[in-house]
Amino acid sequence: MRYKATIEYDGTDLHGWQIQPGLRTAQSELEAALQRLTGSHVRIAAAGRTDAGVHASGQVIAFALDKEWPPQTLQRALNAVAPEDIAVRSVECAGDQFDPRRHASSRAYVYRIWNARTRSPFWRRYAWQVYRRLDVAAMQRAAAALCGTHDFTSFRAAGCDAEHAVRQIIRSQVEQQDELITYEIVATAFLRHMVRNVVGTLVEVGWGTRPADS
Amino acid sequence: MRYKATIEYDGTDLHGWQIQPGLRTAQSELEAALQRLTGSHVRIAAAGRTDAGVHASGQVIAFALDKEWPPQTLQRALNAVAPEDIAVRSVECAGDQFDPRRHASSRAYVYRIWNARTRSPFWRRYAWQVYRRLDVAAMQRAAAALCGTHDFTSFRAAGCDAEHAVRQIIRSQVEQQDELITYEIVATAFLRHMVRNVVGTLVEVGWGTRPADS
Repeated sequence: MRYKATIEYDGTDLHGWQIQPGLRTAQSELEAALQRLTGSHVRIAAAGRTDAGVHASGQVIAFALDKEWPPQTLQRALNAVAPEDIAVRSVECAGDQFDPRRHASSRAYVYRIWNARTRSPFWRRYAWQVYRRLDVAAMQRAAAALCGTHDFTSFRAAGCDAEHAVRQIIRSQVEQQDELITYEIVATAFLRHMVRNVVGTLVEVGWGTRPADS
Repeated sequence: MRYKATIEYDGTDLHGWQIQPGLRTAQSELEAALQRLTGSHVRIAAAGRTDAGVHASGQVIAFALDKEWPPQTLQRALNAVAPEDIAVRSVECAGDQFDPRRHASSRAYVYRIWNARTRSPFWRRYAWQVYRRLDVAAMQRAAAALCGTHDFTSFRAAGCDAEHAVRQIIRSQVEQQDELITYEIVATAFLRHMVRNVVGTLVEVGWGTRPADS
């Protein structure tokens, strides 16, 4: 039986999603949890591969088990054996062909900036601290200009292996609440390092070192 | 010169505010930071002594230094030498007689409950997980009934050394946002363990094991 699960993790102490020899990753921790439950190695597929230090609040994964489990029982058992910084929010049965990566219709990323001279003990794990005051209105204009279908060649990483760089941005929005600036971007798909490159560019706009329409 | 500072700390890895031999506390870390800056031991007074695991977002402290420092320079220097889980939000000059404990006109505590079967990797440090579904409306009624001046004898700790148990509650409010229930209580002063005892009682009301008007 193939299962779909939605998971959440605090990426602070994880080296991203994907298995890397000798390092603690979300995939290796969850595959170890499944091995403890089933006694055999189970490969997990994910909708997106997050980088080190990136958190997940709605990562969709899929895996197949030989034995059939009631979804709720499987969820509870996984939460009982998984480490504290990973949680399984839901489990359901999925079709044999379900592939969270190919079947994802969109992906949402949230990037937080703590814009203050003083660090925040509470946001230090969950936000990038930018000391210099940012012009949030200019960032909002620049973010809005990203909506739609564009060629993101200038935002892709050197080693990006995607066939082409055209991506459709469904939502791109900057919001501010006191010292905390939140950027949300939703797209059908992303290029490697695209989100962090977009955020870096938005911060340059916020500093005034780059015009909002550039 | 006497200084007043407002500080913030993530209490996860601290054994509360007050100095305890051999343990890491907010007071001992900040006194060590001041010693590094000034070369001499400086005693710090605080508005409230938080327990182990309790966080602070607006703790007011006071201390006297022989040398006069520009407040902004002192703030930056303290943040540079203090550990990452403690931040100094502001520093200002204070009168020689300023006592954050005696001069506090009110104190506000926020208590968070993660009310879900599944743990939250993000709230695990900042909320108490309660599995059984809580009746938030009943908790709101019970919380509202605490406003005003009452005798809190039944909510004080065994070792509480306050002269009397009459306290004035200025605000007592339960709010819910999805799985997160937040309780805020503001009072002129609190008894020892009063907040946690009030929260424990509110949760009993939320479970239905105690009536809201009890």
